[in-house]
Amino acid sequence: MKTEILKVLRESGGYVSGQQLCDSFGVSRTAVWKVIDQLKKEGYEIEAVRNKGYRLIESPDVMGQAELESLIDTRWAGKTVVYAKETDSTNIQAKALGEKGAVHGTLVVADRQTAGKGRRGRRWTSPPGTSIYMTILLKPQFLPSKAPMLTLVMALSVAEGIMGETGLPAQIKWPNDIVVNGKKVCGILTEMSAEIDYINYVVTGAGVNVNADSFPEDIARTATSLYIEGGVKLRRAQLAASIVERYEKNYEMFMETEDLSRLKDPYNRLLVNCRKEVRILEPGNEYEAVASGINDTGELVVMTADGKEKAIYAGEVSVRGVYGYV
Amino acid sequence: MKTEILKVLRESGGYVSGQQLCDSFGVSRTAVWKVIDQLKKEGYEIEAVRNKGYRLIESPDVMGQAELESLIDTRWAGKTVVYAKETDSTNIQAKALGEKGAVHGTLVVADRQTAGKGRRGRRWTSPPGTSIYMTILLKPQFLPSKAPMLTLVMALSVAEGIMGETGLPAQIKWPNDIVVNGKKVCGILTEMSAEIDYINYVVTGAGVNVNADSFPEDIARTATSLYIEGGVKLRRAQLAASIVERYEKNYEMFMETEDLSRLKDPYNRLLVNCRKEVRILEPGNEYEAVASGINDTGELVVMTADGKEKAIYAGEVSVRGVYGYV
Repeated sequence: MKTEILKVLRESGGYVSGQQLCDSFGVSRTAVWKVIDQLKKEGYEIEAVRNKGYRLIESPDVMGQAELESLIDTRWAGKTVVYAKETDSTNIQAKALGEKGAVHGTLVVADRQTAGKGRRGRRWTSPPGTSIYMTILLKPQFLPSKAPMLTLVMALSVAEGIMGETGLPAQIKWPNDIVVNGKKVCGILTEMSAEIDYINYVVTGAGVNVNADSFPEDIARTATSLYIEGGVKLRRAQLAASIVERYEKNYEMFMETEDLSRLKDPYNRLLVNCRKEVRILEPGNEYEAVASGINDTGELVVMTADGKEKAIYAGEVSVRGVYGYV
Repeated sequence: MKTEILKVLRESGGYVSGQQLCDSFGVSRTAVWKVIDQLKKEGYEIEAVRNKGYRLIESPDVMGQAELESLIDTRWAGKTVVYAKETDSTNIQAKALGEKGAVHGTLVVADRQTAGKGRRGRRWTSPPGTSIYMTILLKPQFLPSKAPMLTLVMALSVAEGIMGETGLPAQIKWPNDIVVNGKKVCGILTEMSAEIDYINYVVTGAGVNVNADSFPEDIARTATSLYIEGGVKLRRAQLAASIVERYEKNYEMFMETEDLSRLKDPYNRLLVNCRKEVRILEPGNEYEAVASGINDTGELVVMTADGKEKAIYAGEVSVRGVYGYV
């Protein structure tokens, strides 16, 4: 009921009488009062005025199941939110839920990760209170070979969500990072459990640097936060909800063709590598080329120095910008 | 120490003095006696003769960690055996061990599965006492797209193991079944946990019908056991060890090229579909063709009625023999 009351207060914008809340949810005045009290304890500023009712004055940067569920306006993505103040990694938790039969679209969110993961088992620094650590669990019907494209679907959704909520010029560094002003604000990691021709489940996690005001020295050169770049502290749950809503929309566009043909243009418009020189690091081979964007299956299309076009699969190479980090 | 004493007794073939065992393992007479007593309780017939020592008269069909470890003669495959009298599914257990960082080559074996799995989440009937349920956990360095080939590596190893231990004409039904006289004796299921370009771990499970003397009515038409076909009860641990040993060898051949080019010929010699009419069931399309064998990546190469050659990927089609089950 916490989720619902929060939603009613937020959507009304003004006062909502206690009686109205009682009637809406078929509960007693005391029950309503208890929920309001809980919300206050979590940090929400709620005014109670006799003969007028309750009013939500301010939603602070609260992360929690009720906050997220009351904000996420979707049909299936994030309709079930599993929130933890602290967890090992939201990807690990989402995979465990996948093993136990959790539904398509389940969203796992944490305020802090003790074993945050980047690609290839690298560590992802995950301090509390300032970041979004979120993972969505899917059970798609398509072939396992198509799953890597979900990283790009999420990348597009995160970039769009950041731009929508902050106006900052978020860009995608192919295939799985989001950068603002050339520095990383988000990394994305897709993992799946699959048979030869059948996906048991697939999880896509995103770690977004939102309100941090500084970074450890070893990553400060390449990492930034939306607060550092924009100067405004954000409500993380609002941004997470915005990302999930865009993800649902983008995923459905993806499913129409089971590839990126409908998302390619918006993706390429946000691609930081586009029309830039990139350095391709193949095993035992390194060369420069000019990237022109992704193709329908998410490969990066580049033009080599001898004028040949090549499509590069994320698994086979690393791509570095020639100048600076991106 | 149970594994080691069992090994010494088996390898000697005759009497081994208690003193010799004490000296070999640096333990007391009582300790040796206790192990011998345990082995007897598990069903081993061990004779103890004064002034001569202990002699292993008969190894019954015991499945267990010590039995398996004392029989498996490999460098890395199955050097760690995790045995359970009963488990949900050896694939599920192997995946859980993979999450926890178990080593490459860990072998999970059970006498009974309560939730045995076939492909696409189908049930695999798993009664106790007569079958092998085994899963090997690998942590390979190659790309996830190559993992499906491991099903074929295991299929070849199981077929070779059965032929080596029983002389029965085991054949492979592409991609993942082993048949004897046209009926199924083994199914294989590969599952993996992976990132876009990185395998966290991959498990390949095999369920082998060994000593069953009958099958439930609904599967009796298509399933059989090695006992039904050969008339001889087998020691399951011996067969499991033989399969693991061949798997190690075949996997190493696979790794030389990271494809099936070195295993293609032995695989095709055992392929029941070879030079047979097969019915290809593509989504929304069904036709007959003649199979000629697998190619380097494990696809089934067929010749269609209009003389065209096609390579069929396991994920995209089902293949049925035109006559009967296979």
